[in-house]
Amino acid sequence: MLLTAPDRLLFSDPNQHGLARDLYDSVKSLPIISPHGHCDPKWFAENKRFPNPAELFVTPDHYVFRMLVSCGVSMADLGVPSIDGSAIETDPRKIWRLFAKHFHLFRGTPSSLWLNHSFEHVFDLDIPLNAETADVYYDRIEAKLSEAEFLPRALFDRFNIETLATTEGALDDLAWHQQIRDSSWAGNVITTYRPDAVVDPEYEGFAQNLRELGQITGEDTHTWSGYLKAHRARRQYFKSFGATASDHGHPTARTENLSQQDAEKLFQKVLTSECTAEEADAFRGQMLTEMARMSQDDGLVLQIHPGSRRNHNATVFETFGRDKGFDIPGRTDYVAALKPMLDAVGMDPTVTIILFTLDETSYSRELAPLAGAYPALKLGPPWWFFDSYEGIKRFREATTETCGFYNTAGFNDDTRAFCSIPARHDVARRSDCAYLASLVSTGRLREAEAYEVAHDLTYRLAKQAYRL
Amino acid sequence: MLLTAPDRLLFSDPNQHGLARDLYDSVKSLPIISPHGHCDPKWFAENKRFPNPAELFVTPDHYVFRMLVSCGVSMADLGVPSIDGSAIETDPRKIWRLFAKHFHLFRGTPSSLWLNHSFEHVFDLDIPLNAETADVYYDRIEAKLSEAEFLPRALFDRFNIETLATTEGALDDLAWHQQIRDSSWAGNVITTYRPDAVVDPEYEGFAQNLRELGQITGEDTHTWSGYLKAHRARRQYFKSFGATASDHGHPTARTENLSQQDAEKLFQKVLTSECTAEEADAFRGQMLTEMARMSQDDGLVLQIHPGSRRNHNATVFETFGRDKGFDIPGRTDYVAALKPMLDAVGMDPTVTIILFTLDETSYSRELAPLAGAYPALKLGPPWWFFDSYEGIKRFREATTETCGFYNTAGFNDDTRAFCSIPARHDVARRSDCAYLASLVSTGRLREAEAYEVAHDLTYRLAKQAYRL
Amino acid sequence: MLLTAPDRLLFSDPNQHGLARDLYDSVKSLPIISPHGHCDPKWFAENKRFPNPAELFVTPDHYVFRMLVSCGVSMADLGVPSIDGSAIETDPRKIWRLFAKHFHLFRGTPSSLWLNHSFEHVFDLDIPLNAETADVYYDRIEAKLSEAEFLPRALFDRFNIETLATTEGALDDLAWHQQIRDSSWAGNVITTYRPDAVVDPEYEGFAQNLRELGQITGEDTHTWSGYLKAHRARRQYFKSFGATASDHGHPTARTENLSQQDAEKLFQKVLTSECTAEEADAFRGQMLTEMARMSQDDGLVLQIHPGSRRNHNATVFETFGRDKGFDIPGRTDYVAALKPMLDAVGMDPTVTIILFTLDETSYSRELAPLAGAYPALKLGPPWWFFDSYEGIKRFREATTETCGFYNTAGFNDDTRAFCSIPARHDVARRSDCAYLASLVSTGRLREAEAYEVAHDLTYRLAKQAYRL
Repeated sequence: MLLTAPDRLLFSDPNQHGLARDLYDSVKSLPIISPHGHCDPKWFAENKRFPNPAELFVTPDHYVFRMLVSCGVSMADLGVPSIDGSAIETDPRKIWRLFAKHFHLFRGTPSSLWLNHSFEHVFDLDIPLNAETADVYYDRIEAKLSEAEFLPRALFDRFNIETLATTEGALDDLAWHQQIRDSSWAGNVITTYRPDAVVDPEYEGFAQNLRELGQITGEDTHTWSGYLKAHRARRQYFKSFGATASDHGHPTARTENLSQQDAEKLFQKVLTSECTAEEADAFRGQMLTEMARMSQDDGLVLQIHPGSRRNHNATVFETFGRDKGFDIPGRTDYVAALKPMLDAVGMDPTVTIILFTLDETSYSRELAPLAGAYPALKLGPPWWFFDSYEGIKRFREATTETCGFYNTAGFNDDTRAFCSIPARHDVARRSDCAYLASLVSTGRLREAEAYEVAHDLTYRLAKQAYRL
Repeated sequence: MLLTAPDRLLFSDPNQHGLARDLYDSVKSLPIISPHGHCDPKWFAENKRFPNPAELFVTPDHYVFRMLVSCGVSMADLGVPSIDGSAIETDPRKIWRLFAKHFHLFRGTPSSLWLNHSFEHVFDLDIPLNAETADVYYDRIEAKLSEAEFLPRALFDRFNIETLATTEGALDDLAWHQQIRDSSWAGNVITTYRPDAVVDPEYEGFAQNLRELGQITGEDTHTWSGYLKAHRARRQYFKSFGATASDHGHPTARTENLSQQDAEKLFQKVLTSECTAEEADAFRGQMLTEMARMSQDDGLVLQIHPGSRRNHNATVFETFGRDKGFDIPGRTDYVAALKPMLDAVGMDPTVTIILFTLDETSYSRELAPLAGAYPALKLGPPWWFFDSYEGIKRFREATTETCGFYNTAGFNDDTRAFCSIPARHDVARRSDCAYLASLVSTGRLREAEAYEVAHDLTYRLAKQAYRL
Repeated sequence: MLLTAPDRLLFSDPNQHGLARDLYDSVKSLPIISPHGHCDPKWFAENKRFPNPAELFVTPDHYVFRMLVSCGVSMADLGVPSIDGSAIETDPRKIWRLFAKHFHLFRGTPSSLWLNHSFEHVFDLDIPLNAETADVYYDRIEAKLSEAEFLPRALFDRFNIETLATTEGALDDLAWHQQIRDSSWAGNVITTYRPDAVVDPEYEGFAQNLRELGQITGEDTHTWSGYLKAHRARRQYFKSFGATASDHGHPTARTENLSQQDAEKLFQKVLTSECTAEEADAFRGQMLTEMARMSQDDGLVLQIHPGSRRNHNATVFETFGRDKGFDIPGRTDYVAALKPMLDAVGMDPTVTIILFTLDETSYSRELAPLAGAYPALKLGPPWWFFDSYEGIKRFREATTETCGFYNTAGFNDDTRAFCSIPARHDVARRSDCAYLASLVSTGRLREAEAYEVAHDLTYRLAKQAYRL
């Protein structure tokens, strides 16, 4: 028995199916462009083996362990590292068995799709994972991880990755990236400039972060002009490690376009402890516009990932810290929020701003109309909870009629689970091909066009949008 | 001619159809679990015949008469009871004819689906209802209602209902439930604790309701601690009549988690006429958290039904009162609204909180991410305007990828139309099986898993979530 | 090769397909009722030839040129007329070539569908438009435009239009309509009363517009009663040119129902320069209710088109003016917003209010529940970005289950692109028939009913809702 059906996601209707399959066949072997994600550059710098099945698949991936937690399994029993010193399970086999016992919880989810894809296509497993097969799985994966062809660089090559972007904070020295460049390995791993910790006044340690930014760059980061210069310097540094984009995770999509005097006053405010929540929000908004203006000069693509209410549960945050599955989307406005930035740079065709959303309702109402008007805007692929078959389908159905395909930016896997990369790109390729086949079968696209668009969505649009 | 196609809702695609039908065949005869609804316990206590076709199908069901009203038929002509003494039609045959003449208005709606199901499967009618057939229908239904097998208890058994929960206010003496228990009939009819009238400071007669609550429980319901004790006592009383859940219909999903001192102060405020709308809202929010804490002790499941703007039209409310089809949904926020309660009890796996929504946009953006993280949360089935084929389909498509099946709570019919119960559960079973078949045919679920999930969605999840 | 597949939009599933096709065949030749749109009455008054391909298809249609602009083509190069005197391209062939070169951007959009429909069915072209075929296209269209059968009146007849409503401002003298009536031509072109410029205090030239309204009507438009009388007079004047409806494009759906004293005070405020944004908004809301009350007397249908944030980009507005593709939808509330008006006239079955939306999320949550309750309300068809196959599909799926078909108002093309009219109505007919076929094939509608509903949706509902 196969864990993954050969024609999965390609529809069951025999009329449509043949074309969907043919379209997919035409793109399935194209190299992977992964312009946005959270893999650890250390893997490729050191090229050491992944420690064990639990640390490969369960404990670092909040997509995965949150499902078990939501059904009553404790994070501690799953070995999720605590930050307050409370005891957690450390036996990877026990963690794996707990995971295996609850694997049915993933039925119908994209996690089940990519996990099964990895089990079958990376680790050659072909029996369903459950309590009975837990040890078989563990032993097989554990054994494979010791083999040379399962080292990070070997997997990178086997996954046919042409470019992989990681994401580093503004204060990162990019030493792992340096180590990759110093090695003989030819894999193209680049960085992305993510300055949230020195842009968001509410970020833990903001004041200290600004001081560090000053030290690193030799700029006076307590004056507005010095602060902006420091950003420009870091952007150049990141560019020297291949960065073609910056990325910004804000609670809202708010932008501001204050005069430089007003921006300077606001900056002085956020340096003090009297900065209000409103001022912090305004400052983040101003910085998006500043970053967009820097893009006009240095060409870095601006990615905006707004709308996540981070660390929703107080207890979980105190015990386990950030990124533990308790980031919950909220309603996100784009139309009024982006206007200041778009008045500043939106009509400049040399700027590229890629918008993401966790609020699907904005696709047809706001994002497609905006991207279908402003030359600077492109829509990023469905993000987070929508990185899935239905999510991609709804995205295409909600946006294509208004902004077409050519205002979108191809696929991002946005993952920290290395083995999921080929699986996620495969899901995107299949979902897009199924959608294209449905356009052809309903007379909305000619067949020859569908092949071109399939190639564009899989490969060309990502390279072009991210300037790769 | 049949009114109801044998393979209705099971898709038309031949590939998918076979499996959908097989899945449905495997669950169609399972007993009905109806853990939330508005049937009148008096029916089963007295076991008297239903008065006539109009009072069985038209006048008490605002789902039904609102459609005719929306197209220009007057409520008075439909015999909807007025509260201001204005004249209404009293001849049930005339009402029935008016209903029959306008029955085409229901084309494409779930009402047409369940009404036709009842006509055919309960009353053996097989010609379409319209002006010409109105009298045939009336005479047939009227004749059947006189037969012993059409008495409420007989229908309950025939409908294969394993458990039926009704809903009673906190001040209800549950005398009808007592009478059922005192009878020799074995039907399992249980109650649900619905304390809106003593929790919502804006409810008609709130002050008097509190006094009654004090008299019934012997507690001083004008002190915060006495008021809470009174709730605890009523919850115990309801539990003694089988209640396993409380239910709360609030305009928003707002919760609060004030200190007990602040809660006491707020309580004193709401006892007075100076209580503002904001304070009333905060108090309702605080009480959700208090109820959740009581759940930690007594195990009652907490159901939250937020987001309906009740009695939208002033004239209709004055003339005809509550529940006349003029309750209109509004946008509902969950992420910020539920945080105080979830910080208090959300990580406790012994608590069950079932969330409903009338704002579909919250499913993929807020509710599935919350239910896919918090152990205390489960998603209730699509409610009210979404208790339908498309509603269920969109619910599954919007939630499954994020929180799976096992953070959902099975089906509720939520009806006051007794004859619609088997029809509504049948629609849910068919819709779910069609969805599962589509997962299998697109390679997202294995066939063996689909059979297990079909059984879970039909039977096990409702029993488990409601602790039945 | 054909540009338009004969069975487009009618699904590919063989089961469903036969019925969808048969339903479509039964309605495809019905006359077009176009009760809301933006054609220029001058075309039919003068009956002169359309100037050239670029001015027929590209420069006046912001649906079309915005897509090219969004991908980096400048408005000036596309010949979009500037209002600040900046230079624009004036060679129609150059504009056409630019359009042709970028025609692939429309893949998957409704624009591609109607453009190809026009190319093939109006201009007998059957090769795809692209850079290579640009001149062939230009020459063919240019040649045809010189022929008598391509004059506006001839096309009107050929398109089988029974009634076409244009839209004119309150100050328009309707001279073109007079000229049509004075001619021997029998085409039924009627007007619509669109008073935004004299109702919205924030409209350019509001004060001057009020003065003109006074001059035209002989009323004192600086008193509340005179102002209302002036509206009543203009409505009568528009009625004498066939108007059966008024239309209102407001930023929100807000209504007010102030006492006449308070309304008078507010009116005096909006006459002054001290009027705040809030007061302007309240005044627009009050005027919707006043217009609804006028409807009770004169029978004009009230159309509300809310929710567009007009002229989103400052630079584009300054350079090119209104209606340049930078009108972006925003979230729109209806439930609270419409309550004042609905309390005033909502239960009056002699009034017809047709609601449109650019916020799809309101369909299932707000609009269908409202239309399924209030006799005065009908839902207009999907508007603007949703005038499309997927838009219509989602509209039907989101509304039919709650308010049925008979609370909807048939199709509007809402276009200023004359050649798109038959194509747009054809898309609506096909999309509706495909939807009806899916209802039949899933057992939700009987086949005989589907034929009746197909006819209703195509023809009868529009005539009835607009009182044509």
